[in-house]
Amino acid sequence: MSAPSFDKKASSWLEIDLSALAANYNLFKDRTGSACETAAVIKADGYGLGVDKVLATLENQNCPFYYVATLEEALHVRSLTKKPVAVFGGLYPECEDAYIHENIIPVLNSLEQTKRWQAAAANHDIPLPAIIHFDTGMNRLGLDEKETKKLHEDSSILDGLNIFYMLTHFACSDEKDHPMNDGQLEKFLQVTSPFSNIKKSLANSSGILRKDEYHLDQVRPGIGLYGGNPLPEAKNPMAAVVRLFGRILQVRTVNQSCTAGYGATYRFDKESRLATVALGYADGFLRSLSSNDNRCAHVYYQGTACPIIGRVSMDAIIIDISHLDKMPHEGEAVEILGPHQSVDDLAVAAGTIGYEILTDLGQRYRRYYI
Amino acid sequence: MSAPSFDKKASSWLEIDLSALAANYNLFKDRTGSACETAAVIKADGYGLGVDKVLATLENQNCPFYYVATLEEALHVRSLTKKPVAVFGGLYPECEDAYIHENIIPVLNSLEQTKRWQAAAANHDIPLPAIIHFDTGMNRLGLDEKETKKLHEDSSILDGLNIFYMLTHFACSDEKDHPMNDGQLEKFLQVTSPFSNIKKSLANSSGILRKDEYHLDQVRPGIGLYGGNPLPEAKNPMAAVVRLFGRILQVRTVNQSCTAGYGATYRFDKESRLATVALGYADGFLRSLSSNDNRCAHVYYQGTACPIIGRVSMDAIIIDISHLDKMPHEGEAVEILGPHQSVDDLAVAAGTIGYEILTDLGQRYRRYYI
Repeated sequence: MSAPSFDKKASSWLEIDLSALAANYNLFKDRTGSACETAAVIKADGYGLGVDKVLATLENQNCPFYYVATLEEALHVRSLTKKPVAVFGGLYPECEDAYIHENIIPVLNSLEQTKRWQAAAANHDIPLPAIIHFDTGMNRLGLDEKETKKLHEDSSILDGLNIFYMLTHFACSDEKDHPMNDGQLEKFLQVTSPFSNIKKSLANSSGILRKDEYHLDQVRPGIGLYGGNPLPEAKNPMAAVVRLFGRILQVRTVNQSCTAGYGATYRFDKESRLATVALGYADGFLRSLSSNDNRCAHVYYQGTACPIIGRVSMDAIIIDISHLDKMPHEGEAVEILGPHQSVDDLAVAAGTIGYEILTDLGQRYRRYYI
Repeated sequence: MSAPSFDKKASSWLEIDLSALAANYNLFKDRTGSACETAAVIKADGYGLGVDKVLATLENQNCPFYYVATLEEALHVRSLTKKPVAVFGGLYPECEDAYIHENIIPVLNSLEQTKRWQAAAANHDIPLPAIIHFDTGMNRLGLDEKETKKLHEDSSILDGLNIFYMLTHFACSDEKDHPMNDGQLEKFLQVTSPFSNIKKSLANSSGILRKDEYHLDQVRPGIGLYGGNPLPEAKNPMAAVVRLFGRILQVRTVNQSCTAGYGATYRFDKESRLATVALGYADGFLRSLSSNDNRCAHVYYQGTACPIIGRVSMDAIIIDISHLDKMPHEGEAVEILGPHQSVDDLAVAAGTIGYEILTDLGQRYRRYYI
């Protein structure tokens, strides 16, 4: 693959393929069918890709419902769409009026939050929209067993609220056949059984693709929309959304026994040819991608893998190009993410998951939406 | 320490102490004395703290010279100050006119770049400002031995250029008594010896504090300005610039043998009390801060360390608060960075360096400049 054309002033740049994002949304929508609502999770600035563009793309696909993590994210999204927007983080104390005024739906994670929201509904004498979150094993957010029991004993706890959905989160849906997956479904159906009239939402990207019985009334894809693989054990069914390129700042030859980079951690065992590329950990190219005795990450020059040498710097990486037939020159591009290296591939090299690679994508990258 | 007051709508927030930044700049300035220029390195958005505010603060301290990493950073800084601005990344191909038009100084890292800059000077019939970078061991950027020899043999290579400085970079100055430190000084003095009329620049934050003989004509502090410890083996002489707080979204009790977080990686050996805090790896709270068998990171509630439990999520962490005398409640704050945990402390817990903690500080944090 040849490098794309780009502004010569850009040090490194991201291509974000919004048509691939739209295709991924529609893959989930097709998979779940028309009886189930396909919401979209657009928290963390649309998984690092720019929530304004992500939202506009999903609006064009008639996405009916959005989830974000925080109240401030919801307030921003509300300025861009009239569709329902829900906050996973819950109902922040003393912020009830902000939710009401902007018509933001809190995911109520505790009875204390439910009580406050109910009081606000009574004060304003209007039913207020809400989602009830039952914890089924994450132990992060949501009603615990004791609170669930209370709710079962006294359903007036929900009086005055307009419950859009009851939901829970998978803890291990990226792991095929993990026993918690069916266990969480079972527990969720059990805790919601007294509320047969209220719609239910469970599945994230992995859950959608693993089993149809996880779909229920609403699915909430996130990572798959942005091209991450929801089924790590299988070929990625999602279209790649992101390509990332870095500019070569310099090429050089080093002698045997020279060292390279901070800490002089890398020592050459033969004369080598190097290129320095203009991106580093300040761009979210994680410092854990530094080479060490156990692993070595790569970038790609015209399709050929070039290993990273020594430590990732704040603004630059050094790569070995000794093995290339054609020597690159200053100003040319290398592929960091693209056809030869997916977000998930780079994540493995960094000892993390694709989600972190995406949400760390730096603000310094020139961004091209295509 | 009690948590500071804050907007209830903010999930997590940064306090950036610009007076501490100013004090740090002046510590370096005092240390180097009036015969040496104290420049400032403000690349990577001012090490993640916001370059506009950082620059304004340094301008008030009469900082005479700025370094950035990329051309685009330089163009932005140029819009804010008339002082000299130099680009470590070099002279980008086909961008000469942008440097000339905005009076940006390239750090010339190769003779090829020097040649292009000289040609531009000839074309415009004006002397052009430049910095010459000699590599003395990093093998990342800068003239190598062969190029240095050429330059020594033919100094007309610099004709038409107004050389502000010759510089090099320390590779191991954070390591006390590392033999490369004196070795790089020696090599730098040797390669620059034919140019006795040209000023010389070597020291970063660590170099400034390690030895006066590293100061030469200009020093270039970076990390120390922002509160990072330039001398990891000693007490940090710099004032802390950053404090970071996260809001408690929920508290809960879990039973023995429950698990928590994605992957269900953490299993409780006794009934425990947990709090979920509103920040995660999408905020630059690195996923490597997840607990595992080898290490466990902490945050602080009213001065008491609370361990992180299980995996860091995109937007949340779970902490153990079983040992606290006073139970926190929803909406209260925990300290992530502050008097009880420095940037460098958190870096150790994450297996990285303070520089990465700073440059990863998320855009979602509400930022307060004090």
